[in-house]
Amino acid sequence: MVHGEEIRIPTQGFSDVCDLTAEVVRVIEASKVQAGIVAVTAIGSTASITTIEHEPALVEDLRDKLEEIASRDEPTRHSQTWGDDNGFSHLRASLMGPGVCLPVVGGRPLLGTWQQVVLVDHDNRPRERRVYVQVVGE
Amino acid sequence: MVHGEEIRIPTQGFSDVCDLTAEVVRVIEASKVQAGIVAVTAIGSTASITTIEHEPALVEDLRDKLEEIASRDEPTRHSQTWGDDNGFSHLRASLMGPGVCLPVVGGRPLLGTWQQVVLVDHDNRPRERRVYVQVVGE
Amino acid sequence: MVHGEEIRIPTQGFSDVCDLTAEVVRVIEASKVQAGIVAVTAIGSTASITTIEHEPALVEDLRDKLEEIASRDEPTRHSQTWGDDNGFSHLRASLMGPGVCLPVVGGRPLLGTWQQVVLVDHDNRPRERRVYVQVVGE
Repeated sequence: MVHGEEIRIPTQGFSDVCDLTAEVVRVIEASKVQAGIVAVTAIGSTASITTIEHEPALVEDLRDKLEEIASRDEPTRHSQTWGDDNGFSHLRASLMGPGVCLPVVGGRPLLGTWQQVVLVDHDNRPRERRVYVQVVGE
Repeated sequence: MVHGEEIRIPTQGFSDVCDLTAEVVRVIEASKVQAGIVAVTAIGSTASITTIEHEPALVEDLRDKLEEIASRDEPTRHSQTWGDDNGFSHLRASLMGPGVCLPVVGGRPLLGTWQQVVLVDHDNRPRERRVYVQVVGE
Repeated sequence: MVHGEEIRIPTQGFSDVCDLTAEVVRVIEASKVQAGIVAVTAIGSTASITTIEHEPALVEDLRDKLEEIASRDEPTRHSQTWGDDNGFSHLRASLMGPGVCLPVVGGRPLLGTWQQVVLVDHDNRPRERRVYVQVVGE
């Protein structure tokens, strides 16, 4: 069985971290899949999916760390060439990757107690991001 | 066909790197899947799965590099807020991601000659980590 | 349904970034899968798969950033022990991970308009890299 849905998430950009767990749970339930895998993927080249303990202090730590790794103020050839000032967003997205693949066990995503699936929107402006949740299993 | 197993790995923390390849091979064999994919996922928000040439010198290099990227001695809001001193562990885990998805070909995970699947436990104490190996295919 | 193919990509190494999108599209078409997932995986411990807007300025930015994160000139225990001078290649590969898993929707990989699937070959010499494209779905 395969079941997928696109979800849309309003974000503030600059590595805004948005908890997707409830949506992932909902799509798996809609799929009727009891055992399999779920691929959660950000559509576009300036966003990532990862997991984190989604609490405000750690979210700020992650945003600071990404600022250290690829600062919004750092000149990039991409920004200089295209004038859209989001070279750092692309770098963060390519380094972290576009998606995660998690096991589905007992009709739910298998996560730790303090672990959420999150979108990290690295772009440099508020926007509505598209995420695809694809469930494959039986 | 879908077949999954949880495996438990004792680790020393601080980005201890543990070779899971034999366990992944074993779970794929138990699944009887000849062609498909295997998702290997760390359960919890302070561990990652990746692949590496699992030899001691490179393992030390990776641990040094992770110490450079997010040092155990660096203050984090997460550690200050919750008092558990493992903000760096969470940062390393969210940056590297919780899992990998590999092809299964001829009933085995397709890896290079010098490539192993490993758990990297970033937490700040010895513990037993849970990893889920989910095989989907035919 | 499961369908996979190995593809071979000539690269220049040092985090050479090669667009695989057309090959991924072709393998999905050959699979006849309309809905599912595609796992694109680099075989070997010195290469990664990610997505990026594959334009020359950004490609150079990514290569510079990887040089910052793990420089080719930085001594590593791996290079000192084995004499192959590619410790940095392994570090980049383990940090970025070996593969991505993308949704297949309507018989195509679901990507943004400016998003391509790429091989990043971190090794320190020109070589032909192996990538496996595995499609699972219906």
